[in-house]
Amino acid sequence: MHAYRSHTCAALSAANAGEEVRLSGWVHRVRDHGGVLFLDLRDHYGITQILCDGDSPAFAALEKVRAEWVIRIDGKVKLRDASLINAKIPTGEIEVYAKEIEVLGPVEGDLPVQVFGEPEYPEETRLTYRFLDLRRDSLHQNMMLRSNVVRSLRNRMWDRGFTEFQTPIITASSPEGARDFLVPSRLHPGKFYALPQAPQQFKQLIMVAGFDRYFQIAPCFRDEDPRADRSPTDFYQLDIEMSFVKQEDVFAAVQPVIQGLFEEFGKGKKVDPNWPLIAYRDALLWYGSDKPDLRNPIKMADVSEHFRDSGFAIFAKLLENDGTEVRAIPAPTGGSRKFCDRMNAFAQANGLPGMGYIFWRKIVIVDYEKWFHEELLAWIETGEVDHALLESKKEKFTTEGADNLSTVLDKIVALIATGDGIDRIEAKKLVNANFSGERIEAAGPIAKALGPERTEAIRTQLSLNEGDAVFFLGGKAEQFESVAGKARNEIGRELGLTETDTFRFAWIVDFPMYEKTDEGKIDFSHNPFSMPQGGLEALMGDPLKVYAYQYDLACNGYELVSGGIRNHRPDIMFKAFELAGYPKEEVEKRFGGMVKAFRYGAPPHGGCAAGIDRIVMLLADTANIREVIMFPMNQRAEDLMMGAPSEPMNEQLRELRLRVLPKDA
Amino acid sequence: MHAYRSHTCAALSAANAGEEVRLSGWVHRVRDHGGVLFLDLRDHYGITQILCDGDSPAFAALEKVRAEWVIRIDGKVKLRDASLINAKIPTGEIEVYAKEIEVLGPVEGDLPVQVFGEPEYPEETRLTYRFLDLRRDSLHQNMMLRSNVVRSLRNRMWDRGFTEFQTPIITASSPEGARDFLVPSRLHPGKFYALPQAPQQFKQLIMVAGFDRYFQIAPCFRDEDPRADRSPTDFYQLDIEMSFVKQEDVFAAVQPVIQGLFEEFGKGKKVDPNWPLIAYRDALLWYGSDKPDLRNPIKMADVSEHFRDSGFAIFAKLLENDGTEVRAIPAPTGGSRKFCDRMNAFAQANGLPGMGYIFWRKIVIVDYEKWFHEELLAWIETGEVDHALLESKKEKFTTEGADNLSTVLDKIVALIATGDGIDRIEAKKLVNANFSGERIEAAGPIAKALGPERTEAIRTQLSLNEGDAVFFLGGKAEQFESVAGKARNEIGRELGLTETDTFRFAWIVDFPMYEKTDEGKIDFSHNPFSMPQGGLEALMGDPLKVYAYQYDLACNGYELVSGGIRNHRPDIMFKAFELAGYPKEEVEKRFGGMVKAFRYGAPPHGGCAAGIDRIVMLLADTANIREVIMFPMNQRAEDLMMGAPSEPMNEQLRELRLRVLPKDA
Repeated sequence: MHAYRSHTCAALSAANAGEEVRLSGWVHRVRDHGGVLFLDLRDHYGITQILCDGDSPAFAALEKVRAEWVIRIDGKVKLRDASLINAKIPTGEIEVYAKEIEVLGPVEGDLPVQVFGEPEYPEETRLTYRFLDLRRDSLHQNMMLRSNVVRSLRNRMWDRGFTEFQTPIITASSPEGARDFLVPSRLHPGKFYALPQAPQQFKQLIMVAGFDRYFQIAPCFRDEDPRADRSPTDFYQLDIEMSFVKQEDVFAAVQPVIQGLFEEFGKGKKVDPNWPLIAYRDALLWYGSDKPDLRNPIKMADVSEHFRDSGFAIFAKLLENDGTEVRAIPAPTGGSRKFCDRMNAFAQANGLPGMGYIFWRKIVIVDYEKWFHEELLAWIETGEVDHALLESKKEKFTTEGADNLSTVLDKIVALIATGDGIDRIEAKKLVNANFSGERIEAAGPIAKALGPERTEAIRTQLSLNEGDAVFFLGGKAEQFESVAGKARNEIGRELGLTETDTFRFAWIVDFPMYEKTDEGKIDFSHNPFSMPQGGLEALMGDPLKVYAYQYDLACNGYELVSGGIRNHRPDIMFKAFELAGYPKEEVEKRFGGMVKAFRYGAPPHGGCAAGIDRIVMLLADTANIREVIMFPMNQRAEDLMMGAPSEPMNEQLRELRLRVLPKDA
Repeated sequence: MHAYRSHTCAALSAANAGEEVRLSGWVHRVRDHGGVLFLDLRDHYGITQILCDGDSPAFAALEKVRAEWVIRIDGKVKLRDASLINAKIPTGEIEVYAKEIEVLGPVEGDLPVQVFGEPEYPEETRLTYRFLDLRRDSLHQNMMLRSNVVRSLRNRMWDRGFTEFQTPIITASSPEGARDFLVPSRLHPGKFYALPQAPQQFKQLIMVAGFDRYFQIAPCFRDEDPRADRSPTDFYQLDIEMSFVKQEDVFAAVQPVIQGLFEEFGKGKKVDPNWPLIAYRDALLWYGSDKPDLRNPIKMADVSEHFRDSGFAIFAKLLENDGTEVRAIPAPTGGSRKFCDRMNAFAQANGLPGMGYIFWRKIVIVDYEKWFHEELLAWIETGEVDHALLESKKEKFTTEGADNLSTVLDKIVALIATGDGIDRIEAKKLVNANFSGERIEAAGPIAKALGPERTEAIRTQLSLNEGDAVFFLGGKAEQFESVAGKARNEIGRELGLTETDTFRFAWIVDFPMYEKTDEGKIDFSHNPFSMPQGGLEALMGDPLKVYAYQYDLACNGYELVSGGIRNHRPDIMFKAFELAGYPKEEVEKRFGGMVKAFRYGAPPHGGCAAGIDRIVMLLADTANIREVIMFPMNQRAEDLMMGAPSEPMNEQLRELRLRVLPKDA
């Protein structure tokens, strides 16, 4: 028999009853039922129940065993009593009667992190004893998920004709916006390597070298300041590059890979196969974000025209300034003052003066007269209006304060006058909405200031109804847009509008190539290496009107993928950098390797990179990145288990010709 | 039609004749046949011949195109004339008549590295223009081979129930014998991370964390001094670890993976399925190496006994000292003075005083008498010896100087006297070898000094024969063993004994745990983390007699895999380190993370790591590691294409609180 096991802890079933077996694993739990020991033995594969009593030679030794000891058990497989069968685990029909035990790895002292039951501990404790933390089923499952996701991505890429190549990890500094990690060179003291922020230049060089469809599960290194949802040192991306492609070719290559992955590991959640293309500008307008969560049906809109020169002075005045607008966030089913006030407070907590709102409620009309309702419907039917009655009613409504009803009556009569079918339907709607005993009323101070016409126009534009609300933010878009996006999320979640069982994707396209900085200078707004739409010619006009062939994939509010069609033409590249204020020499110096390569026959190419950690977080449904990494750093970029970073030995510094300066130097 | 291509450059065949197609790629070669242009268009997939003449609107533009430009061609597929069909390439039956051309990526100036024909360039030039070098077919193939090898390894590991996990790259220093690359921490100035020399501790922690069969294609970082066959910065290994295993379980898991891989990518070379286990001691004795090349049939042997107190004074005297021996390197078919002298010179070139030798040649016996040969055979047949004739012949041979023949006659008669069947066969052999008109003579000064008996005993021990040779090295094994190993390689190659179409593997096992240093101290001879054979008990005796559960896989003279069963017991680990002079505190300090983990329930575990670069080099049949890495460093650890390492910016050093010291500080 094998030294440690004849079976794993998930392998035995009723079919093995009567067999002599050998199992090894961790003691998951011990229960002492007065002279009878029950012990759950756990390994990577599963759990098997071990049974022992005083008749067994193993009893005395087994009594001493505690949780998380590693032991070997020899014993005989027995069927459990029918009442004790556990249908939840594959070994639930049997137990093993222990005859011999060997302690392979005991526990010294107390366990700082308990495995059974997964009680809560401070994260620092969990990270210090990560090897114990990882034994917990939830984390064990996350690690297996991550591994399977990476494997599946690889296979899907190979299946689509991509080849994986490894690019250097110890390499040159490649300024991509974040901070490099540096590696001092011993053979060239005073010089430093850098860890790659991404294999961007290398993958483009692979295209120039004549390979056609590259991918890599690539480690990327950025010396980032702490943030909860990202690793402070490194992350993994599925890096992709293709030659002889347009933007749509990249989309066509990526969608089936990601779609299939989410279907495989999405635990039954729906994966919407419709991936719309949304222009960057529209994404900001509609969703207040370039990574919109499309599970939320709320689509914002520009409602400036309704506020221009209106009675709502704050917005009317604000709209007199250039570049301002009023944005509406519709909130279907949000039509209560309580909810509206809560959202207003939310905006204030996010640094805005507040969010104005209107909500619509149903009110009963005080002067409801059933006979008059029917009379009006008869007018529409026959096309004949009783003008005397009309005037008397108008007068009545005016004196009774329901003045808008007299206006509505005028509209109805006007519609009847045209005699047109569609107008008749419209007239009927107005009759039913205003003279059937109840109607919608717009509530809130803005509605009052704006007046009924404009308020109604807003309601109509946004297709809102009784019980719904709308929030307004005014000013320059860039000042309120991110709060608007957050408010949209909050509203969607609070009102239960946002789906929770679906993955919805969208390609965000047409990113502007340039933006104006606060100092009024032109700078790249995103990736300087993307090809400008319209090529060299486009760069001869207004830079702020140039779009780049650049795109992101948004999923449920996260950016999963980012990429672009690259600028493979040195002439266009130098011009693009020139517009952003970088002279040719600077470009040659900073990106020399790549620019040189483009001079010797470069193919058109493009690609993207997908964030692996983020994908696994979405699939594992966790917001903490440390739940999906085997050995993560804490947020201070420390490895508490291995003790990194640490002081170097003097000898090491001497070899590198480095000196650490005192704190206040 | 797609913007760049309707087909790849390998896709068109006779079946496409008449179709309008679009191709994109690099201009591999242009031939101008006076008014008719032939152009080979190359992409990742293959080559298609483009044809153009003055009737085409594309002719003028195509005439300007040069090698390595990237172009798009629109044209019509035509069948080639039968006489022009190229059966070597898939597109060899067709050509494309160009009607339109677009230059997608021109070449500026002269090409520093030509692709077509692959002319020779200095390695520095090739590395500086790696993106051109990689376009060459040989390198392109190597890169694809590497990628496919890694993919195959991954699939084979998954198929055998292993799971891939990524371990940290920015981590703690883990002293494993080589130098760490350090990474200064910005958040903790003065402290440093290290890049892992191997994921050794992490993979063991993964086992302690309860995962069962781990693997990883893992980047490893060692700040190594330059050597031709290794990267000066990083390399990749297939890293493997398993729980609840013995040494033979690791072998059983690894052999099918490697065997299958070599069968898949070995280009038809034989892959010997017999993987012998050879003790480390035996490997050194037999092959002079712990990574023997078993394609070479030569097996060395200890022949000390034949030299002890012999007439060959140098060795006889040398053997009087403790720990000395005389080692024989048999050289079948090497029996010529010219060859023996060449090998002697080889030993001198490798720092030894020389290699003594004996070789055996056939000589014709001067006094051959056919009738006497037959007489002797008759004696054996009948068992009756003509003693008078015998004595006269013995006398004759002595007087004529062939004195050993009279001794042989005595032997023959003695064998006849026993009347035994086996002795009769032996007698017949002696008769045929000595009285059939020719016999073997041992030549060389050692043979003379040693005398015929001892010389013959050596020949018999080594199963050598006429036309063969043997070389001798004497002294302490550790002083001559590596040269002996080299000589064995040289002899095998020179004599054509070493197979060239086979991969032969062997597990080298039973490495000694400790060795005596030159200063007489006990130190670990290999991996301090391996489990000593015999456990704690074995460590109570003579450390130099302890073997470790540690093993290497040798293939064709290279170490492909190295591994061990780990020491998972803190008590045994502390004792093992204590013997090597490391106090407990030192072990806790240097390997604290792992030792701590072993206190909380550690399973028995073991594994190994296989060198990916080495495997690909073997399969690609190259001795230069830079031929199997996409973007390699040069031997001075510089990336000539990207310009690494380089001077950091002052701002970067300031953030890290580092100062570079002047050269003579």
